[in-house]
Amino acid sequence: MANDSTRQMDAIINLCKRRGFVFQSSEIYGGFNGFFDYGPLGVELKNNIKQSWWRDMVHRRDDMAGLDTSIIHHPDTWKASGHLDNFTDPLVDCRESRQRFRADQLFFAPVVVDGETIGYVCVVEDDAMQTRAEEQAHDLKRKLARQGTLAPLVLRDFTTANAEQIPLIPSPVTGKPGSLTAPRAFNMMFQTSVGALQDASATAYLRPETAQGIFINFKNVIDTGRYKIPFGIAQIGKAFRNEINPRNFIFRSREFEQMEIEFFISPEADWQTIHKEWIDYVINWFVSIGIPREKLSLYAHPKEKLAHYSKGTTDIMFAFPFGVQELQGTAVRGDFDLTQHGTHSGKSFEYFDESTRKKYIPHVVEPSFGVDRIFLAVLTTAYAEDEVEGEKRILLRLHPRLAPYKAAVFPLVKNKPELLARSEALYKKLKRRWNVFFDASGAIGRRYRRQDEIGTPFAITVDFDTIEKDGTVTVRDRDSLKQIRMSEAETIQFLEEKIEA
Amino acid sequence: MANDSTRQMDAIINLCKRRGFVFQSSEIYGGFNGFFDYGPLGVELKNNIKQSWWRDMVHRRDDMAGLDTSIIHHPDTWKASGHLDNFTDPLVDCRESRQRFRADQLFFAPVVVDGETIGYVCVVEDDAMQTRAEEQAHDLKRKLARQGTLAPLVLRDFTTANAEQIPLIPSPVTGKPGSLTAPRAFNMMFQTSVGALQDASATAYLRPETAQGIFINFKNVIDTGRYKIPFGIAQIGKAFRNEINPRNFIFRSREFEQMEIEFFISPEADWQTIHKEWIDYVINWFVSIGIPREKLSLYAHPKEKLAHYSKGTTDIMFAFPFGVQELQGTAVRGDFDLTQHGTHSGKSFEYFDESTRKKYIPHVVEPSFGVDRIFLAVLTTAYAEDEVEGEKRILLRLHPRLAPYKAAVFPLVKNKPELLARSEALYKKLKRRWNVFFDASGAIGRRYRRQDEIGTPFAITVDFDTIEKDGTVTVRDRDSLKQIRMSEAETIQFLEEKIEA
Repeated sequence: MANDSTRQMDAIINLCKRRGFVFQSSEIYGGFNGFFDYGPLGVELKNNIKQSWWRDMVHRRDDMAGLDTSIIHHPDTWKASGHLDNFTDPLVDCRESRQRFRADQLFFAPVVVDGETIGYVCVVEDDAMQTRAEEQAHDLKRKLARQGTLAPLVLRDFTTANAEQIPLIPSPVTGKPGSLTAPRAFNMMFQTSVGALQDASATAYLRPETAQGIFINFKNVIDTGRYKIPFGIAQIGKAFRNEINPRNFIFRSREFEQMEIEFFISPEADWQTIHKEWIDYVINWFVSIGIPREKLSLYAHPKEKLAHYSKGTTDIMFAFPFGVQELQGTAVRGDFDLTQHGTHSGKSFEYFDESTRKKYIPHVVEPSFGVDRIFLAVLTTAYAEDEVEGEKRILLRLHPRLAPYKAAVFPLVKNKPELLARSEALYKKLKRRWNVFFDASGAIGRRYRRQDEIGTPFAITVDFDTIEKDGTVTVRDRDSLKQIRMSEAETIQFLEEKIEA
Repeated sequence: MANDSTRQMDAIINLCKRRGFVFQSSEIYGGFNGFFDYGPLGVELKNNIKQSWWRDMVHRRDDMAGLDTSIIHHPDTWKASGHLDNFTDPLVDCRESRQRFRADQLFFAPVVVDGETIGYVCVVEDDAMQTRAEEQAHDLKRKLARQGTLAPLVLRDFTTANAEQIPLIPSPVTGKPGSLTAPRAFNMMFQTSVGALQDASATAYLRPETAQGIFINFKNVIDTGRYKIPFGIAQIGKAFRNEINPRNFIFRSREFEQMEIEFFISPEADWQTIHKEWIDYVINWFVSIGIPREKLSLYAHPKEKLAHYSKGTTDIMFAFPFGVQELQGTAVRGDFDLTQHGTHSGKSFEYFDESTRKKYIPHVVEPSFGVDRIFLAVLTTAYAEDEVEGEKRILLRLHPRLAPYKAAVFPLVKNKPELLARSEALYKKLKRRWNVFFDASGAIGRRYRRQDEIGTPFAITVDFDTIEKDGTVTVRDRDSLKQIRMSEAETIQFLEEKIEA
């Protein structure tokens, strides 16, 4: 990770804490790894992302139904979906230190001197692991008092270690061979017990994705009578994954929020075209909330890495400070999920298509979004530092649709009752409709800065011209710093156009 | 429960399923007791309730901060709050049938014949339990061949049974004495394990209330710099309680959604007045979303039933079809929670009050709302049956703020391209701003009925006058059935006033 990127992430995390966007969960108790709390400004930004999505994906389309299913389902859901058997990470235990590692994040290499393997090294994945492994190799060579030339180390992840190698690979904690187990499948679903009994019949799971709640309600939605294929069902909600190694701030956490769509199509439909239409629709949506097109790229999963039922998956990647990573994915899943739930429940998921007079189990295209990742992408896009009148300025160039406060209202000075009254009246009027902020304290320049830093797009100042001359106020643009005078009625119309476009 | 009430609940549950408001969770797998899914219309109604609340409690006030904390916290939170020790139900096991009962829902009585106790009867609480207990008593008398007069049965709940009685009280399942255990405390928090290890150190809980997330973030919010006591922190989110006996549809479920406020005040503030102000504010809010004042009543918890730290709790009760039950509660909790978290975390929760130059741990007034209960109160208020033109009509008199669709747009007939185009254009225009519905199929009367049943307040019909004469449309009111002609611009203004008041 480059230094600039680390600095940018640190600056964003710092701003998040200082101004109340994101806090580490349970901070007073030392924090809780993989969990986050959204503060007063964070909850607004997050709600604005979710509401923009719902408006554009559900309300403004004719072919979409909303849904909000419970986080805990009947456990058979996860048997049918395959999560109970396959939603696992390969884990390795160190029997001596009792620590656990993801096998694909543990790297080992044979230490070869003049063609002979004298032992192994083992390190946990990070940017410096090659260097650390080489140090370990030199230490081993010295300890065994071996002369000769050390061959270059070739690190491979622990999932590739064979039965002869495992007993010889040292623990990355103790440095001693013999205590690492072979990788074992560890289910990533959080488990709990429902009801008074705590036996196996009571075991249930926190959903690891919102999608299955959509599939199991497909018939319920169809039976309300109005939806005809092609149509989609959309849902926003929390999901939980017991990640062994949560990282990159809110990018990969254990509790997170998803926005998912299952778009049901005929098995005979041209899925390639529909897939592409969805990808384009999603990219346009990202652009509409202020994520620049040039920070996005596409990654089509290679055919050989897809599950047997999948026809294709394309991720939209975003250039995060810590690397280019998945922001959103659109999978073509065929009829796998509905068929599985049909088999396990004994219910029929066949749909009668009135237009073609045919019965079929629908196929799906699945655009899936992570709210927290979008939140982070929006913040890293918006974060900027510049200089205004010789002073360093931090600003968030948030799209007005997403900004926590849509505008701030200031009286030019605090100690003129008429200015104060006029600005408060305007503030109250705007506040009926939008989340706006009022600030009367401190120099006007300082008040601007405080709003710039939290992304408020417009600052409206009531000054002496307002009360003595023509009733106009100044509207200052956060990004261009331009100030325009307009009447209060014009200001409302201006905000309306900027916010609700 | 009166028959009329049962019929009303049945009608509402039926409508919820038929039109897509609420489904039983995991229905295809036989359902999952205590969990519910909100369908396409239910998610809209629920979102509208939450968004109205947020707007009125957070955006439109000057003294409120929002927050959105994780569902899983550091487990020390629940040690400090007392939930780990005290958030329990008393449970009784039947060792033979392996069934469990809440002790306070299990009722027993001695069977006394001519002054002598010949045994016990035991029933699970319901409306007919007295009758069933009397049948059991008669059976027992007959079985033991006892003559004489049976004394009237006085049922008491099982928490009052003493050690001599318990072995003599029969199981309500098997009818045999000796298999019931004494009541044992059963914690109602759902438990899970976080991280790769499954030992005690990994144990965590799903929050049983959203309030504690607010308390543990009090310092974080204060440190963002702007909030001065008195002020409140508001949060909406899921909470989970492992209820032994979930009941009354979505009224008491295991997964539910809360909207909670902690309003922080000085220990020297006049809490009685602030408490009363909040209760009035909440009542006004309920009225503003269409719940009539006369269906609400107040219940002040008696002093002797309050926790030691509590100064008073007043519930707002609602006349549900199944009885008058708690809809919302406002508790005065003193400084109990902040002090507890201070003690357990070693962090100081003292606040420096600039206006009085004093340091103190704030006290709180806590208005707490259940989203699902409000949803049910709104539905039972809105549900009505009447007769229109000789036909029975079901309608939901939902407030326009809450209605899933704000309006429906109809072309008078389907087969006139000009009518169709004009109505579609209006629909698309409205849809940019609100969730509206378009329907061209079937007789106009039938289309009205379909919208009445889901609570759409206004039906806008484009007819021949629209395209041939003056461009006006008819706007029909769901409740009064009145139709008014207005221009498209007037229609938009009319909707704006009705929806966004």
